[in-house]
Amino acid sequence: MTTVLKGQAQVDFMPSALTGVLFSVALFLAGWEYALYGLAGTAVGTATAHLLGVERGRIAAGLEGFNACLVALGSAVLLGPDRPATVVVALVACVLVTVVTGAVARVLGTWALPTLTLPFCLTATGIALAAPGLPRVWPHGAEVAALPRPVGGGAAPDLTDLWHAFFANVGQIFFMPQWYVGLVFLVGIFAADRRAGALACVGSVTGTLTAWALGVPADQIASGVPGYNSVLVAMALCGVFLIADRWSLAYAVLGSAAATAATPALGSFFAPSGGHAFTWPFVLVTLLFLAAAPAFPRLRTPLPAPAPSDTHPDGAAAP
Amino acid sequence: MTTVLKGQAQVDFMPSALTGVLFSVALFLAGWEYALYGLAGTAVGTATAHLLGVERGRIAAGLEGFNACLVALGSAVLLGPDRPATVVVALVACVLVTVVTGAVARVLGTWALPTLTLPFCLTATGIALAAPGLPRVWPHGAEVAALPRPVGGGAAPDLTDLWHAFFANVGQIFFMPQWYVGLVFLVGIFAADRRAGALACVGSVTGTLTAWALGVPADQIASGVPGYNSVLVAMALCGVFLIADRWSLAYAVLGSAAATAATPALGSFFAPSGGHAFTWPFVLVTLLFLAAAPAFPRLRTPLPAPAPSDTHPDGAAAP
Amino acid sequence: MTTVLKGQAQVDFMPSALTGVLFSVALFLAGWEYALYGLAGTAVGTATAHLLGVERGRIAAGLEGFNACLVALGSAVLLGPDRPATVVVALVACVLVTVVTGAVARVLGTWALPTLTLPFCLTATGIALAAPGLPRVWPHGAEVAALPRPVGGGAAPDLTDLWHAFFANVGQIFFMPQWYVGLVFLVGIFAADRRAGALACVGSVTGTLTAWALGVPADQIASGVPGYNSVLVAMALCGVFLIADRWSLAYAVLGSAAATAATPALGSFFAPSGGHAFTWPFVLVTLLFLAAAPAFPRLRTPLPAPAPSDTHPDGAAAP
Repeated sequence: MTTVLKGQAQVDFMPSALTGVLFSVALFLAGWEYALYGLAGTAVGTATAHLLGVERGRIAAGLEGFNACLVALGSAVLLGPDRPATVVVALVACVLVTVVTGAVARVLGTWALPTLTLPFCLTATGIALAAPGLPRVWPHGAEVAALPRPVGGGAAPDLTDLWHAFFANVGQIFFMPQWYVGLVFLVGIFAADRRAGALACVGSVTGTLTAWALGVPADQIASGVPGYNSVLVAMALCGVFLIADRWSLAYAVLGSAAATAATPALGSFFAPSGGHAFTWPFVLVTLLFLAAAPAFPRLRTPLPAPAPSDTHPDGAAAP
Repeated sequence: MTTVLKGQAQVDFMPSALTGVLFSVALFLAGWEYALYGLAGTAVGTATAHLLGVERGRIAAGLEGFNACLVALGSAVLLGPDRPATVVVALVACVLVTVVTGAVARVLGTWALPTLTLPFCLTATGIALAAPGLPRVWPHGAEVAALPRPVGGGAAPDLTDLWHAFFANVGQIFFMPQWYVGLVFLVGIFAADRRAGALACVGSVTGTLTAWALGVPADQIASGVPGYNSVLVAMALCGVFLIADRWSLAYAVLGSAAATAATPALGSFFAPSGGHAFTWPFVLVTLLFLAAAPAFPRLRTPLPAPAPSDTHPDGAAAP
Repeated sequence: MTTVLKGQAQVDFMPSALTGVLFSVALFLAGWEYALYGLAGTAVGTATAHLLGVERGRIAAGLEGFNACLVALGSAVLLGPDRPATVVVALVACVLVTVVTGAVARVLGTWALPTLTLPFCLTATGIALAAPGLPRVWPHGAEVAALPRPVGGGAAPDLTDLWHAFFANVGQIFFMPQWYVGLVFLVGIFAADRRAGALACVGSVTGTLTAWALGVPADQIASGVPGYNSVLVAMALCGVFLIADRWSLAYAVLGSAAATAATPALGSFFAPSGGHAFTWPFVLVTLLFLAAAPAFPRLRTPLPAPAPSDTHPDGAAAP
C-alpha cells in the first residue's frame, strides 16, 4: 500500500507516501471515481512489474506505478469513468504501460535519461488515436478529428484568471481543472519537499506569464491547460535531475517557458486525433534539456555518470 | 536464387528456400504480377547489398531481401502493378531500402534489437506520403487524405467471417486479402518450422478475438486487416527473438492483442496520408516488447548479449 | 565577428569567414532585414553557447551558430520580419536551439553522427506548429492547416525554369527563391572550397532532374523548393562526411534523388501545420545514409571512428 501511495506521488517526482495520500484526497475532491482509477492503476502497474520480476528498488520507490496511475486516469477522462469498457481498457493499458516503461528505460538509459512520463504519453496517445476506430471502446460517436485552427485574440486575463491558473496548472497534471484540487496537490508536494513545492510555484508562474505574453486567451489560461507542463519542467530541471543552484534555476525557467510554447504545438500536431497533448511538452522539453546538460559545464548532475542499471533514474530513490 | 527465396521467407522470419517457394506460389495465386514484384524486389535488394559489400552472412540468410520484397509489393499495391512508373519506383525504392536497412540495423544494434520490417515501413510510408504530390507516380487523381472518423458498430462476425479472418490475417502480411492465399502462406510457415506455424495460428486467433472484443465491424475482421500484425508479433516474441516457454507465450499473446489495438491507432495517425499502417503496429509493439525484455528476468533471450556485428539479429541464421 | 561569419557559412558546411561575408551579401540582396536576422541569430546562438560553457573548438568553428542563423531567418519568413513579436520569438528561439543542439549532438554522438540542421528543424517545426495558436505571435489570422491534396500534372519545365531552379535550389537553403541570390550563395561556397561548390552543382542538377522525372510542375521546380535539400545532401555525402571518391559520389547522387522524392512526403506529413518541410528531407536522408555507411565497406569515413567528445562532427574543424 505504501508502494502504491509512493507511486501516486512519483507523478510529481516525490517518493513520499504522505504525498500520495494527499494526491488521492485531491483526486477524491474531483470525483471518487478518479481517486479509485488512480489508485487501482498504480496498483496494477506495480503488480505487473512485480510479476515480471522488475528490480525491487524501482518498485519500492514507486517508479513502476506513476505512469500506470496517469494511464488509468487518462482512460477515465477520455472514455468516461463509469463504463465497464473503460475499466477493461484501463486495466489492460496499465499492464501494457509497464512493458513500455521497461522499453523506454532501456533506450533512454543509454544517455542516463529518466523515463519521465513518456510511457504514459505513448500509451495514452495510442488510446486516443485508436479509440474512435473501436465502437465498443468509444461511446461518443462524435467527431474528434479536426485540423488545427488559428486562435483569435481575447481579453487579457484578470486577477481571478491568474490565481485560478496558478493552482489549476498543478491540478491539470492529473487532468483536473478545479483550482481547489490543484491547491491540495500543491500542499502534497510541499508536504514531501519544500524546495520542490517552491519550484512547482515557479513553474506555474512562468507558465502563466509565458502564456499571457504569447496572447493565449484568458479562459484557456485559467483552465491550467497552457501551464501544467511548466510545473513539471521546473521541478525536474531544478532539484530533481540537476542540482539546484542559480544556473539550474535559470535553465528551469527557460525550460518552463519553452514547455508553455510547446503545448499549442503538440496540440496542433495531435489535432487530427483529438488534440490531446498529455504531458508530451514536459517530456520532450525535459529530455532535450537533460540530454543537453552535460554539454554545459555550469549545470551539475546529482551523481557522477551513474550506470543505468543500479540507479533509479526516474526520481529520488526510496529512503 | 536460394538467397532470393530465403529473402521471401524471411518476411515471416523463416530462412528456408522451400518456404520462399510456397510464398511465391501464394503470391502467384493472388496475381502473377505480385509474384514477380516480390521476387524481383527481393533480388534487387539482395543485389544492392552485395554491390555495397554488406557482410555475406546477412545476405546468405536472406536478411537483405525481405524488406525489399515488401517494398516492391507495396509499390505495386499502392500505385498499380501494370504501370511503367510503378516498376521504376519499385526498383529505386528497393535500392533505397537496403540503405535504410543498414541505418536501422546500426541504430537498433545499440540495444541488440532486430530491424524487423522497420526499413520497409519507413520506405513505404515515404512513398505513400510523397506519391500524391508526384503526378507521374500517382495515377489516381483521387483524394486520399482524410481526417480519421469514428467507426460505427456493426453486426458481430459470423463463423465464415472468423475462419476467413484466420487465414486472411496471414495473407495480409503480404497485402493479400484472399483466405486461400493466406492458407498457402501458412502452409509455407509450417513447412519451415512447426512451432512457428503454431505461433502464427495463436497470433491470428488472438488478433481476431481482440478485434471482435473491441467492436471492430465484421467485414473488417474478415479482411485480415485488424489481425495481420498480431501474427507477426506472436511469432517474433515466442520462439524467434525470445526462447519459447510459457512466459514468452503469455508475453506474445499480450503483444498480439496490443498490436491489434495499435492498428486503428496507426491508421488514424496516417489518415491524412491515406491511412496505410503497413506493418508499423508489428514493428512498434515488437520493438517495445523486445527492448523491455531484459528488465523482466522471466523472459530469456536466445543468446547471451550478442555483439551486433557478428550475429544476424533479424532472424535465424542460415544453416 | 569571425566566429559569427563562420557560423553563417556552416549552414553549407564551410568554416570560412569569407563565405560568411558572401552569404550575408546574398541575404542582403534578398532584403536587409534577412541579412540582419541571419547575423543576429548566429550571434545570439554563439553567445548562448559561450555563456553555457560549450567547448571552445565547436564555437570557434561556427558550429554553434548555423542552426540559430536558420532559426532566426525562419522566424522572419514565417512570422513577418518587421514585427516586434517576431524579433522576440527569434531571439528566444535562438537561445533554445542552442540547448536543442546540445541534446541532439549528445544523442546522435552515440553513432558518431553529426547534428546537421536537425536542431533547426525541430525548433522551426515547433514554431510553425505553435504559432497559429498564439494570437500575439501569429499575425495572419488565416488558416494554414490543410489536408495534403494530389498535385495535377502541368507543363514540362522550359530552359528558363531549369536554370532558375539550378540557382534557386542553392538559395532556398536560406529560404530565398531569387535565382541571383542563389548565385551569390553558390559563389560563396566556391570561395571556400571548389570541390564543395562542384558537389553543390551536382546536387542541384540531380534534384531538378529528379523532380522533373517525377512530374513535379514547372513553376514548383523553378522556385527551388523541390531541389534545395538535394544540394545539401550531395555536399554532405561526398566530401564533408564521407571521403570523396566515385563510390561516395554515386551514394551522394542516390541520396540527392531520395531527398527530392522525400520533400513532398514531408510536405504532406506537415500539411496540417502549414506544410513546412524546412530541411527535414536533407536531415533524414543524410542521417540514414551516414548511419548506414559503416555497413558498406566501399564507403570510407574521414577519421577512424572518432570519439564524439573531441571532434567536431558537424563539419570541418577551424583551421
